[in-house]
Amino acid sequence: MAVSSSLFTSSLQGSMVTPKTLKCCTEFKCSPSNLSFQQSRHTKSMHLTHLGLLPSRKLSIWETDGFSSKDRIQCRAFEVEKAPSFSVGKKFQLDDIIEAQQFDRDTLSAIFEVAHEMEKIEKNSTGSQILKGYLMATLFYEPSTRTRLSFESAMKRLGGEVLTTENAREFSSAAKGETLEDTIRTVEGYSDIIVMRHFESGAARRAAATASIPVINAGDGPGQHPSQALLDVYTIEREVGKLDGIKVGLVGDLANGRTVRSLAYLLTKYQDVKIYFVSPDMVKMKDDIKDYLTSKGVEWEESADLKEVASNCDVVYQTRIQKERFGERIDIYEAARGKYIVDQDVLDVMQKHAVVMHPLPRLDEITVDVDRDPRAAYFRQAKNGLYIRMALLKLLLVGW
Amino acid sequence: MAVSSSLFTSSLQGSMVTPKTLKCCTEFKCSPSNLSFQQSRHTKSMHLTHLGLLPSRKLSIWETDGFSSKDRIQCRAFEVEKAPSFSVGKKFQLDDIIEAQQFDRDTLSAIFEVAHEMEKIEKNSTGSQILKGYLMATLFYEPSTRTRLSFESAMKRLGGEVLTTENAREFSSAAKGETLEDTIRTVEGYSDIIVMRHFESGAARRAAATASIPVINAGDGPGQHPSQALLDVYTIEREVGKLDGIKVGLVGDLANGRTVRSLAYLLTKYQDVKIYFVSPDMVKMKDDIKDYLTSKGVEWEESADLKEVASNCDVVYQTRIQKERFGERIDIYEAARGKYIVDQDVLDVMQKHAVVMHPLPRLDEITVDVDRDPRAAYFRQAKNGLYIRMALLKLLLVGW
Amino acid sequence: MAVSSSLFTSSLQGSMVTPKTLKCCTEFKCSPSNLSFQQSRHTKSMHLTHLGLLPSRKLSIWETDGFSSKDRIQCRAFEVEKAPSFSVGKKFQLDDIIEAQQFDRDTLSAIFEVAHEMEKIEKNSTGSQILKGYLMATLFYEPSTRTRLSFESAMKRLGGEVLTTENAREFSSAAKGETLEDTIRTVEGYSDIIVMRHFESGAARRAAATASIPVINAGDGPGQHPSQALLDVYTIEREVGKLDGIKVGLVGDLANGRTVRSLAYLLTKYQDVKIYFVSPDMVKMKDDIKDYLTSKGVEWEESADLKEVASNCDVVYQTRIQKERFGERIDIYEAARGKYIVDQDVLDVMQKHAVVMHPLPRLDEITVDVDRDPRAAYFRQAKNGLYIRMALLKLLLVGW
Repeated sequence: MAVSSSLFTSSLQGSMVTPKTLKCCTEFKCSPSNLSFQQSRHTKSMHLTHLGLLPSRKLSIWETDGFSSKDRIQCRAFEVEKAPSFSVGKKFQLDDIIEAQQFDRDTLSAIFEVAHEMEKIEKNSTGSQILKGYLMATLFYEPSTRTRLSFESAMKRLGGEVLTTENAREFSSAAKGETLEDTIRTVEGYSDIIVMRHFESGAARRAAATASIPVINAGDGPGQHPSQALLDVYTIEREVGKLDGIKVGLVGDLANGRTVRSLAYLLTKYQDVKIYFVSPDMVKMKDDIKDYLTSKGVEWEESADLKEVASNCDVVYQTRIQKERFGERIDIYEAARGKYIVDQDVLDVMQKHAVVMHPLPRLDEITVDVDRDPRAAYFRQAKNGLYIRMALLKLLLVGW
Repeated sequence: MAVSSSLFTSSLQGSMVTPKTLKCCTEFKCSPSNLSFQQSRHTKSMHLTHLGLLPSRKLSIWETDGFSSKDRIQCRAFEVEKAPSFSVGKKFQLDDIIEAQQFDRDTLSAIFEVAHEMEKIEKNSTGSQILKGYLMATLFYEPSTRTRLSFESAMKRLGGEVLTTENAREFSSAAKGETLEDTIRTVEGYSDIIVMRHFESGAARRAAATASIPVINAGDGPGQHPSQALLDVYTIEREVGKLDGIKVGLVGDLANGRTVRSLAYLLTKYQDVKIYFVSPDMVKMKDDIKDYLTSKGVEWEESADLKEVASNCDVVYQTRIQKERFGERIDIYEAARGKYIVDQDVLDVMQKHAVVMHPLPRLDEITVDVDRDPRAAYFRQAKNGLYIRMALLKLLLVGW
Repeated sequence: MAVSSSLFTSSLQGSMVTPKTLKCCTEFKCSPSNLSFQQSRHTKSMHLTHLGLLPSRKLSIWETDGFSSKDRIQCRAFEVEKAPSFSVGKKFQLDDIIEAQQFDRDTLSAIFEVAHEMEKIEKNSTGSQILKGYLMATLFYEPSTRTRLSFESAMKRLGGEVLTTENAREFSSAAKGETLEDTIRTVEGYSDIIVMRHFESGAARRAAATASIPVINAGDGPGQHPSQALLDVYTIEREVGKLDGIKVGLVGDLANGRTVRSLAYLLTKYQDVKIYFVSPDMVKMKDDIKDYLTSKGVEWEESADLKEVASNCDVVYQTRIQKERFGERIDIYEAARGKYIVDQDVLDVMQKHAVVMHPLPRLDEITVDVDRDPRAAYFRQAKNGLYIRMALLKLLLVGW
């Protein structure tokens, strides 16, 4: 995993051997007619699959909202004997969401299955109570309104409650200087799960190592933003209908965009993928990712012809040229920015089933007239972020 | 409507011809014994009155909180045959709340009837669940704590949930530059209704044109703040007991205050209204409103004698002189500010049934000793803002 | 109470003679088979104990969450005849929480009993509905994320809802200049209880005098922060098992820390208490508190030997040296800061049952290795803040 580690930070495998949830005691009462599971607030992420008790397949009970979490778990426990056995293991332990590398293909597939169920729940006008009684703290050390609202909507759509701060730096303000670890130890006393945005790479990992409750990384500096990576892959699956065999054009700022780097990384999990890089010279995809793709047998090529790439691809993934990376060289920024625009001309050469994606916000790298085309998938992609976050919250708090 | 358009911005009539709610599919199942209406989350503002199915009168069922929204709608559908027929039409379509001009007399009356019901709901200690499962996003591009808390209280009093941001400018921050339209397309994916405060006149109209969910304008720059206009008229009706035939003294900064301009505009909907303008010369009511009143046959006069006006009026509507409009001419501001003060002397000449109103915040244009007089209606007026906002949320999300 | 007044601000006794809650009308319906109590939203803090109807002892019904507040009150009313009579009086009226001095020993004991019940409720995964339908406004004139999240978590753990502002200064921004009293009159219309943080000493008292709903002081400038004082005493009771006869070492910045001053004050309520002051010369405990302790017969002494004190005490209460008090004399600050550190050496001399407390945030006045020792009580102390705040909200909103 050396390559993986150098690409991002390091692997989570070590910490996952001792699942966070096993720190807490749980009480099982078994009788011939009744297998019940008593869950306390502090066994939030108890993984029944890990204990070999439960299959990880989605149960239809998720859509009946009249049950408390405890009832729900009991009901699932009842189904143990009826359900097909399922190989369970490390991959199904979701204690924290820290980085894209922690997911293997099976875990991605299982998360996407839950996310798909969440689409139905979200559309139901009566709302869900799956997470009723649970409290999420959004601990944002820098504002990211888009990401915060998406997580908070996810929590509330599932009946949970939210504590919000976009002012988390105040915890450790100049005169005070509290460590992140101390802040986490305080906040974990007030909530059941922490969604953290931080300005420093690695902060999420430190928080997760400290917290006895689950932590979700909602972006840590130039580092990771794993829920964005998940929603991108999920969107491809939902829009194109498959992940094996797809052709993806990554366009724009490939040097600085963490979304395209994470997406390229995750696509190595699938078969027969082909990736095209289309970017101004200033912001080409870096060698670490290219080398990693090669090492995993993923075909890739660089191209300067957006139309030709677009005509070949299932997905054109456009990104914003990040002005802030160019310093005072506004002239170079402007040249880079105007070079590859997705407009009607590009749409005209794209295949009928292909889609245009973008992590948002966009400036003019996709022209507004493209919005009207059904292949413009970027607002659906943003909405998929809601489903992915609903799934993650559900999985971390009440399990598969 | 040319006059109306020049007074404010423009009319909503065009967009109201195609109600937002009809974009969504709905499913009706009818049988002899059962007329049920299946509502999905995306048919929030479906107007049964528009479809000729339902009367717009308030049904007593609103006060029984054991029902889900869907049940509620079904129950109302059941009552169709029993209820008196009601003329329905464009005026009862509330898709968005953008500006004071969108309301005619009948709509005002219907909204006030709902607001009055909300008073009872708010006083009930067990709370209401009318909007359970609904999620409101307060998208504030500039802080307005008073308005925001009022809307959020309204939503929560009805059992709904809230996503908050007073940091909405962050969506379109320097380096990013996302359009308002793109932001709206993202936020509408996370919520069921958007309450927006913006610094630019016309922003609310743009947001409403983009959104497939209802938008409420909570103030857009120097433009409109329609829920304030509604609560002012509602307060007059509640305090004085009538709107036809009332005499209203508008006092203070009549040039810059959008509340007095909207109030004057809305009062033209009623019969035999007389308006007095009492203001320092620097901040007189502008000619557009005067001309509009004249064109609508509303009697008005300017006066420099606050006491004489107060002795004649049913309502003395005092406003704050807006210091920020005077730039460096603090001397002129101070003179204007001290000229017309509502104090005990003014109260002494007012009629017993008359009231003092003020949109708040106040400085010293109403002296604190006035607060103790039962005719001091301004804090009740602020509270009426809650009822009006409860009514608007209810009407936009689950209909009449 | 002259000493008390000079120590802090002044006593609440005057205002407590006319309980806030008796302003509101209530309706009692009694029949042979049923004693029911109709509570409106505006009789939130009606004190049945004050009326002689109810005992203040904790009833087990608190842990059954299926009841509405109204049901709960009715149930408690039913138990009147069965319950032992209890002397009720002024001390059990909790209309507002303004300052540490308002609590006598019996009230502290009663609050702690409720807080202890709250521990069980918080651990229950299904959550509580005791405060369902109630709305708390967190009106923060300056940010204090730690305190705010603690109160908001407390409210939500009990099923209540929250309106948040950390931007309350905006109410009275430059051009506007609204008084605190007017702001309170507005906010009380939107909520059922106000938790206020203010930058001016005495602001909470002014707010409480204005509001017809309960006000909790969450810190007013250099003045009071009573919920912190309560959680400190509660933590001692929970950790050491007693309050009479304890020995407490107050360490660090005793001149500026309001927590140590409040704690010393409250400890005078108990028997045979001994207090040690251990601090750099620059920041010694002031004479007012020393004199007050003496006047109450509480033994105290100053010491420069932290280890000796630690070996004697039940509680070592460490505090942060407040850098901001030293202005430009960083050299003096650094000397003061390094003088008394709680580390493994200090732990080594402490008794087995003794604990280390700290109001947080800490810098390095307690070394990180201490965290692993079971006697490190400061994160449990922070968590106790949650239970105390749950108890206060419960007591102010639905009574004992």
